[in-house]
Amino acid sequence: MYRHFFEGAEKKVELVLSDGGPSLRSFGRDYWQRVVEAANAQILSCISNSDCEAYLLSESSLFVFDRKLLMITCGATRLIDAIDLMLQSIPPEQIEFFVFERKNEVLPHAQSSGFYEDAVALGRLLPGEAYRFGHEDEHHVYLYHHGRDFAGVSDDVTLELLMYGLPASVAELFDQRNGTEAVTARRAEKLHGLLPKVEIDEHLFDPSGYSLNGLRGQQYTTIHVTPQEHGSYASFETNDLSGGDRSSLVRSVLDLFQPRAFDLVLFDHSAQPVSLADGYVQRAHVLSQLASGYHVRFTSFSKPSNTVEKPFRLPSTAMVEETEER
Amino acid sequence: MYRHFFEGAEKKVELVLSDGGPSLRSFGRDYWQRVVEAANAQILSCISNSDCEAYLLSESSLFVFDRKLLMITCGATRLIDAIDLMLQSIPPEQIEFFVFERKNEVLPHAQSSGFYEDAVALGRLLPGEAYRFGHEDEHHVYLYHHGRDFAGVSDDVTLELLMYGLPASVAELFDQRNGTEAVTARRAEKLHGLLPKVEIDEHLFDPSGYSLNGLRGQQYTTIHVTPQEHGSYASFETNDLSGGDRSSLVRSVLDLFQPRAFDLVLFDHSAQPVSLADGYVQRAHVLSQLASGYHVRFTSFSKPSNTVEKPFRLPSTAMVEETEER
Repeated sequence: MYRHFFEGAEKKVELVLSDGGPSLRSFGRDYWQRVVEAANAQILSCISNSDCEAYLLSESSLFVFDRKLLMITCGATRLIDAIDLMLQSIPPEQIEFFVFERKNEVLPHAQSSGFYEDAVALGRLLPGEAYRFGHEDEHHVYLYHHGRDFAGVSDDVTLELLMYGLPASVAELFDQRNGTEAVTARRAEKLHGLLPKVEIDEHLFDPSGYSLNGLRGQQYTTIHVTPQEHGSYASFETNDLSGGDRSSLVRSVLDLFQPRAFDLVLFDHSAQPVSLADGYVQRAHVLSQLASGYHVRFTSFSKPSNTVEKPFRLPSTAMVEETEER
Repeated sequence: MYRHFFEGAEKKVELVLSDGGPSLRSFGRDYWQRVVEAANAQILSCISNSDCEAYLLSESSLFVFDRKLLMITCGATRLIDAIDLMLQSIPPEQIEFFVFERKNEVLPHAQSSGFYEDAVALGRLLPGEAYRFGHEDEHHVYLYHHGRDFAGVSDDVTLELLMYGLPASVAELFDQRNGTEAVTARRAEKLHGLLPKVEIDEHLFDPSGYSLNGLRGQQYTTIHVTPQEHGSYASFETNDLSGGDRSSLVRSVLDLFQPRAFDLVLFDHSAQPVSLADGYVQRAHVLSQLASGYHVRFTSFSKPSNTVEKPFRLPSTAMVEETEER
């Protein structure tokens, strides 16, 4: 495949267990390391508080709570294999809510499976329903969902911002080759400013790429940036919306990353929309209520194009059948 | 894979030979049948005139002129294998112009190769350059180009319209299950009205899908429609622009198919733009001049979304590891 490309678009699994079973945190770090390795990723570091262990991975993040788990992996990882391993230790009847989410990839041929194959594999592990949010030829997310109506927490909101096409002035903040103190300070000012009172664990990859995990009580935030010119991408995900104004949070994140296009995925109980920054045209708006009671909203936006661009020339040296190691 | 899905997005090869070599038409129908079968397609019918044999295929079309060839295949065909076979009979030094074009697919995992792999294979057959026109996460086409500066014909224009998201009122015209006389008459009125003075060969697939080849002297037109709700698509390609007003032709085709989104690919010698119908927002505009002298212009458009849609639920019975036979 293409050496200069890294697939930023993520796969994600979130599950919530009913009361009564063992705490997921009690499974211990060795167990979670095996789960992470099953996906072909590594644990880089960990922060924790009384509610959560937050692992920063070589490809994204794992958050383990007593009754809830969130694992996000990018690149060519096999999250489906990590799920397979987890479900050997977690009885299906204890699972109140399960979502496997997969973003459409930029280079699907570098992936060892597509969503349909993953859904077939999941169907053997846990009954569920599969959906596509968004047009098949445009940005979209696939969801595989298993769940029953559960009380949850009524103000529980998960917000994902999936951002494409970062300007060079933003991308350079996440490239170690620009590792001056000034760049480091500017990056810290921007990201840490977005997350006041949050405990932060972060990693700048060599030569480029950036990951951040943040914890504040039961609230998590995670940010992953793929700054490569070919396929630049950044994702932001949080359930830390207790301040309430999600529109202003979205605008702050967009101000920071200035993407050419982005998708917003919202899980909540109120189906409350988000008002967005100017300059973007809405391309899709998909809303549905899952069997578990959550509303899922997918909206996709892009800036109109006003300039004539050059094509991207693929370097002939890049035409080799390998994927890049980040 | 997904039973109810057919990949309409096409692969295409066009080549032009220098004077002096054998006529491509002299290779004969048996030869071209082997080429078509190498791609995993079949010849359904043929029309011809003194300039061209136009084959309608089970997956798209093949036009053979004395010095020029155009082959377009959709679905999960392997056009790269047909090219491999052709280039065993055509010496590289006779090739003045060669373009292999591949549209981004909706279900790339149903394809046996991606563009990069095809480009690696092509590189072994014929030196060339590979480009992507359009953003990597949006609609785009890949081109592999081999060519030297050749005179060509200065008014030679190739226009492709690749259209996504057809309304039901249009899709139903291309479904045999609606095969009433009224539907047939309406389809003929619309399509044949678009192509006055053109000899037409057409095929309505069972249960759905439609292909048309048209010839008028050295001018060809080809139309292919995939009306399935999941992934509806129509393509229109022609070099029949002697009437001159390409903008009015584009508007007529858009009026007929009313797509949610479309891409326009233009090969010409003048880099003359096309003015478009209202109601669409431009998402990308990429322009380049190839070594052979042709300007290639890629523009991508979509309608803004103003409605809230439901997600597409994937039928559980469709979760099987097969592709649909059309």
